[in-house]
Amino acid sequence: MPDRPLISVVFVSRRRADHDDEYGEMAERMEILVREQPGFVDLVSVRDPVTRRGITVAYFEDEASVAAWKANPEHAEAQRLGVADFYESYDVTVAEVRRQYGFPANR
Amino acid sequence: MPDRPLISVVFVSRRRADHDDEYGEMAERMEILVREQPGFVDLVSVRDPVTRRGITVAYFEDEASVAAWKANPEHAEAQRLGVADFYESYDVTVAEVRRQYGFPANR
Repeated sequence: MPDRPLISVVFVSRRRADHDDEYGEMAERMEILVREQPGFVDLVSVRDPVTRRGITVAYFEDEASVAAWKANPEHAEAQRLGVADFYESYDVTVAEVRRQYGFPANR
Repeated sequence: MPDRPLISVVFVSRRRADHDDEYGEMAERMEILVREQPGFVDLVSVRDPVTRRGITVAYFEDEASVAAWKANPEHAEAQRLGVADFYESYDVTVAEVRRQYGFPANR
């Protein structure tokens, strides 16, 4: 079990083949903004430029922080643009973390 | 809530800058093998060839399936090779899925 409750939000997306610059600016802005969200814990994001598929995993302290981030006005506008211009498809999975481990073990 | 219990396993890794061919073969084999694991539900994987950072998310029906996959002898050998040859670092997060949604909504 983690020391404290932890909620993971996994965002899997496939980008359309246009709007590269606008998308890059938006994504960069969102990565900055989410870190300002109270309850934010961590973020990791990978995109394959060839397949245009990306996975972002964000961790929050609780569901209230997840809800507040989803409702953040600037993020809401980014979500609207995502559907309108950027994404062919995406999936969001919200889960409660049970355990974490890694290598090297003591970083 | 999902229709049935669902466990997500998020594997975040950074590859070393060598052993590309062996890694590719191993990763391909693991993606085939995990789909044969009873209780396996779904898999999505993305790697950025420039940063060598990857995220794989696998879904299983229950913890018993996750444990069986972790203990699979061929997978155990891949884990050993991962530490010995392939990865600079990795993190595993096991979580219980609370909800999923996406766009387009009805795929």
